[in-house]
Amino acid sequence: MLVAAAPRCVADDGYRLWLKYDLVADAGQRAQYRSAAQFIASNGSDAVLKTATTELQRGLQGLLGQPVPLLAKAESNKRGILLLIDASANVSGSSASRAGFRISTQGRNILVTGRSGAGILYGVFALLRQMQTGQAIASLNISSSPRIQYRLLNHWDNPNGTVERGYAGSSIWKWNELPQRLDPRYTDYARANASIGLNGVAINNVNASARYLTPEYIEKVKALAGVMRPYGIRVYLSVFWAAPKVIGGLKTADPLDAQVKQWWAAKADEIYQQIPDFGGFLVKANSEGEPGPQDYGRNHAEGANMLATALGQHDGIVMWRAFVYKAGSADRFKQAYEEFKPLDGQFSPKVLVQVKNGPIDFQAREPFHPLFGAMPQTPLVLEVQLTQEYLGMATHWVYLAPLFKECLDSDTQTKGPGSTVARVVDGSLDQHRISGIAGVANIGTDRNWTGHPMGQANWYAFGRLAWDYTLTSKAIATEWTKMTLTREPQAVATIVDVMDKSRDIYVRYTTPLGLHHIMGQNIHYGPEPWLAEAGRPDWTAVYYHKADAEGLGFNRTATGSNALALYSPGVQQAWGDPKTCPLNYLLWFHHVGWQQPLRTGRTLWNELATRYYTGADSVTWMQQRWASVQPAVDAALHADVTARLEIQRREALWWRDACVLYFQTYSKQPIPVPFAPPTRTLAEVKTLVDLYQLK
Amino acid sequence: MLVAAAPRCVADDGYRLWLKYDLVADAGQRAQYRSAAQFIASNGSDAVLKTATTELQRGLQGLLGQPVPLLAKAESNKRGILLLIDASANVSGSSASRAGFRISTQGRNILVTGRSGAGILYGVFALLRQMQTGQAIASLNISSSPRIQYRLLNHWDNPNGTVERGYAGSSIWKWNELPQRLDPRYTDYARANASIGLNGVAINNVNASARYLTPEYIEKVKALAGVMRPYGIRVYLSVFWAAPKVIGGLKTADPLDAQVKQWWAAKADEIYQQIPDFGGFLVKANSEGEPGPQDYGRNHAEGANMLATALGQHDGIVMWRAFVYKAGSADRFKQAYEEFKPLDGQFSPKVLVQVKNGPIDFQAREPFHPLFGAMPQTPLVLEVQLTQEYLGMATHWVYLAPLFKECLDSDTQTKGPGSTVARVVDGSLDQHRISGIAGVANIGTDRNWTGHPMGQANWYAFGRLAWDYTLTSKAIATEWTKMTLTREPQAVATIVDVMDKSRDIYVRYTTPLGLHHIMGQNIHYGPEPWLAEAGRPDWTAVYYHKADAEGLGFNRTATGSNALALYSPGVQQAWGDPKTCPLNYLLWFHHVGWQQPLRTGRTLWNELATRYYTGADSVTWMQQRWASVQPAVDAALHADVTARLEIQRREALWWRDACVLYFQTYSKQPIPVPFAPPTRTLAEVKTLVDLYQLK
Repeated sequence: MLVAAAPRCVADDGYRLWLKYDLVADAGQRAQYRSAAQFIASNGSDAVLKTATTELQRGLQGLLGQPVPLLAKAESNKRGILLLIDASANVSGSSASRAGFRISTQGRNILVTGRSGAGILYGVFALLRQMQTGQAIASLNISSSPRIQYRLLNHWDNPNGTVERGYAGSSIWKWNELPQRLDPRYTDYARANASIGLNGVAINNVNASARYLTPEYIEKVKALAGVMRPYGIRVYLSVFWAAPKVIGGLKTADPLDAQVKQWWAAKADEIYQQIPDFGGFLVKANSEGEPGPQDYGRNHAEGANMLATALGQHDGIVMWRAFVYKAGSADRFKQAYEEFKPLDGQFSPKVLVQVKNGPIDFQAREPFHPLFGAMPQTPLVLEVQLTQEYLGMATHWVYLAPLFKECLDSDTQTKGPGSTVARVVDGSLDQHRISGIAGVANIGTDRNWTGHPMGQANWYAFGRLAWDYTLTSKAIATEWTKMTLTREPQAVATIVDVMDKSRDIYVRYTTPLGLHHIMGQNIHYGPEPWLAEAGRPDWTAVYYHKADAEGLGFNRTATGSNALALYSPGVQQAWGDPKTCPLNYLLWFHHVGWQQPLRTGRTLWNELATRYYTGADSVTWMQQRWASVQPAVDAALHADVTARLEIQRREALWWRDACVLYFQTYSKQPIPVPFAPPTRTLAEVKTLVDLYQLK
Repeated sequence: MLVAAAPRCVADDGYRLWLKYDLVADAGQRAQYRSAAQFIASNGSDAVLKTATTELQRGLQGLLGQPVPLLAKAESNKRGILLLIDASANVSGSSASRAGFRISTQGRNILVTGRSGAGILYGVFALLRQMQTGQAIASLNISSSPRIQYRLLNHWDNPNGTVERGYAGSSIWKWNELPQRLDPRYTDYARANASIGLNGVAINNVNASARYLTPEYIEKVKALAGVMRPYGIRVYLSVFWAAPKVIGGLKTADPLDAQVKQWWAAKADEIYQQIPDFGGFLVKANSEGEPGPQDYGRNHAEGANMLATALGQHDGIVMWRAFVYKAGSADRFKQAYEEFKPLDGQFSPKVLVQVKNGPIDFQAREPFHPLFGAMPQTPLVLEVQLTQEYLGMATHWVYLAPLFKECLDSDTQTKGPGSTVARVVDGSLDQHRISGIAGVANIGTDRNWTGHPMGQANWYAFGRLAWDYTLTSKAIATEWTKMTLTREPQAVATIVDVMDKSRDIYVRYTTPLGLHHIMGQNIHYGPEPWLAEAGRPDWTAVYYHKADAEGLGFNRTATGSNALALYSPGVQQAWGDPKTCPLNYLLWFHHVGWQQPLRTGRTLWNELATRYYTGADSVTWMQQRWASVQPAVDAALHADVTARLEIQRREALWWRDACVLYFQTYSKQPIPVPFAPPTRTLAEVKTLVDLYQLK
């Protein structure tokens, strides 16, 4: 008989992410798994190993529907899972990696070995994933190591609880409650990150408050670090450059000032006293109004190196962001390159320069950032954005792995063919000792973490690619779908197909052919290609699309801004001729005549209009595909995504109409057959956009 | 056997509020309830009656652990519950009320009658409450009607998803998802409100965006209204006064301008076309930078009446806020009175003037607002604040019913003794046709709605008092505790005792003896009695406490600002003499010498210090009392509140030390025995406060 205090039963609400551990439905498979997992045994008392043990017990309890005992050692008459830290474990990949693991069948048992507790933890999640996705575990031989060393989420979370560019509620960090109260959600967050191989978290916005460096806040951060530590996750802080002035009482924040150096060194010591495994500093300096070393006539390297020196012997790093662009430039595209490229070779060994995937700012499609390959003496962190600032926020279904992969797979050709961005980032191209990747988090207090249920897949995919960028987008989507939504094969195939195409569809109905930065100002919501006045010219839309009576697009060839010259000759050659330039990048580099025939056989105008129309219509295709999987997925979740697709369709039409009507004022061309012209006027669409920008 | 799609079982997480409906634990009582509730039958097809039926089924299913069938009519051989709309139902209270109900035993059955579906719905929740709190239902005769007609929550929710002065996550309204997606939380929100008798919701911040009046947003609001309607809840909008200019394209927002009048009338028609039961407009005008009729030389009545005229024949009202205070005044206390009192008699019958409980701004304790009783020709809405802007946000346990009651029970004496604020507000003192009460909501996307689990009690208490202000704070606390936390009698008594004392304790350690407005600037977090410079003098602390070498407090008698003269002679007499003035209001009205003996036998300084010390120590008492109920409440919830009490204790010490150290710089007196002086300096406390105000 139930009593009042009994746990209650509720429908799935997305909170468990991909760690659902529902009972394996196939009885035969369940029996096999049960037979292979009659006990767990582990060696050592490492805290992360202990977490691995607990996570394995928890996962198996759910998947198998029965408890699996933790034994002191293997029992010879039973089959079980052994978790063994082994300093000489033979794991694939970098021989130096302490985070790799091997899963193998050894006699009656499954053996998970690694050189650290973290390695075992990742192995445990990999083993559970095998069962979650319905794989056989009879004869295992899996070995895996992370290709990139520092795998971080960056939280743009503010101390007041808001999240800059966050669309999933407010910040999960409750600063006024810390350190006394640890929200249980912190632990669930750490579990999720560890399960996909992430090992670091920069917890505060890069537009940083100095308060995080006060004793009051260090105590709070210490409490969070205590939650993360058993999951192999280190905490990092974004720092406010002027902190020595604001909270240190100094007259300057000049990185060459002795007192400033001393202040930072003492601050680093103070932090490590409290948080021995503190990860280090993330810095946005001299960018978008943030203070920085240039305020004192010093350059980025002088600033970053001072912080690296302050870290001293502590095992921490400095991630210095290259996202800089001064007002007044003729082409923002070139600015980070021009500021950072000359500094290559000047950075301390503890400094990594953090570079966004593209040269502007997380647009739906950008060519790879020209700094990749251009700073061989400096380890570069790749920064991508999971929160969909420019990709439909929380109402558009856009699977981002193809975007991340497109960048990682891009060939910089700086050391000949095969000099991919991935090989720059993982350090293999230039033999760097350290390597890093960062994803700007898409999570908040919404019950399902990401607002759009499908946003969970972007968090998942980022972690998986950070671990191993050779995984394909579809393989990751398949894993995630099976763990999160359904195991029904046809439904899995359908969902993965939609995911795989979703980003290209988004690009089509918003910024086809290489258009960029034509979204609503400030809020970055909806289209605003007509935006011609803003706080700075490079915050307008016309700065980027350069539509005129002749044509459309930003001439970045030698006859224009010549940003193309920042790339290696091979890339210049491929992109420099509008006839060979990939159509996806065409208007990034060329001002093309409206009537210019493209290789598709259509004129630019007709191709542009065609893409807007087919892109918007593809949302209808997404709706149809999603409708077809209804029997295979949770009803509430299905209804949720169905409703969001309705919004997506509506806003896709909004983008389409706004852009074709606006560009038509320049092209003076009709909407090509077979497409019907918009039934509303440009003025009507403008009104719609404007109201979302009202106070 | 469980299958993968089965619902999962989780611990309680506070989401269900007081509507838990866990199985009645006492087997005998459960049997009695089961015996009395073998079926449900209702008449009519009213949508709210249908909701009542569904809610009764849902509640009984949980409480009784078995389904209760809905029958077309009573069965003579069974006992059941009849829900009957009866236009002539004999309910207590105002004979005109359509929202009252009667629950009575009629032969074998329980009969719930009311004149409307809403009446039945409230009756159903009352009947369920009987069972939730373990009352007998064998022989029922309960009759109840709301004493106040318009019972609203005011949401200070912004279109970008933030909540002004919200401490429980972000806004529950997802504007970018509306109208296509209706978050299931909207329905749970409506249920909670209906269960405590609330019948209206102003969904957006009084610092309003014009966007809510666009067709785009009216469609969204319509969707929300569609969720609220079956729960008897009407939706209201806060309006931006300059909307006719901003979205209407007019040159002016002058309320006497013919085009402006026409614009608002057309807008009202447009809204009612979409939302036939739209509630009306809430207006903050010419206050804190918001535009208003005074921008055109018109007064509040001219502005409000224009909107009332715009509402025309529609069944809507205008709630016009009296929260106004211009910069440069010698005493902000008097300003709303001085602006509004002269307008009494000039407002249209559809206008209610909405007045905060006190003359300043939701301080932990304020004397009742002098407008109550001073505008007999105008219905006044009482506005109280549930979100704890000045009451410890989401980390201090402060039960607010005593604060609300203190105001409601205050005797304005404007029509002789017994002219209470409650009788002003319910309209009985001045025979008004309409009456209203508003609570600024304390909810957000946090899983438990209110951040602090005990904040739920403030939402609950507001609804119950809005329905019937004669209920005692303790009775409401007892109801809520039994429904939400525990039914164990000793634990209930302990928790209710803590709740009952919590607000006085908070006042003691923050603003004893009538101190007010000495909190941290802008964020309103922590103490900042030393604040002497701000955007306006009346945003500082020194403006209010007036500490000097002689003493402390704001002289508002005839020798000072004479704000006291705004009250009726009886009140003036009681409060005008520092010897008879209640100590709780002393420093609100008098500048008292540090060495002045009070009736407690202590000097002002010693009494002040004593209250700060005993107040902070009382938090330790709260901690001890809470620890004692541990076995009787949910473990996770107990741990949550325990942690928040630790924060509360820490911040109470912070307030104590800040205030005694700061005021000591004027009093030059030692901390009285037996209290130990603070172990930190004033400078140290200031540093602590300052860091929470950093960017």
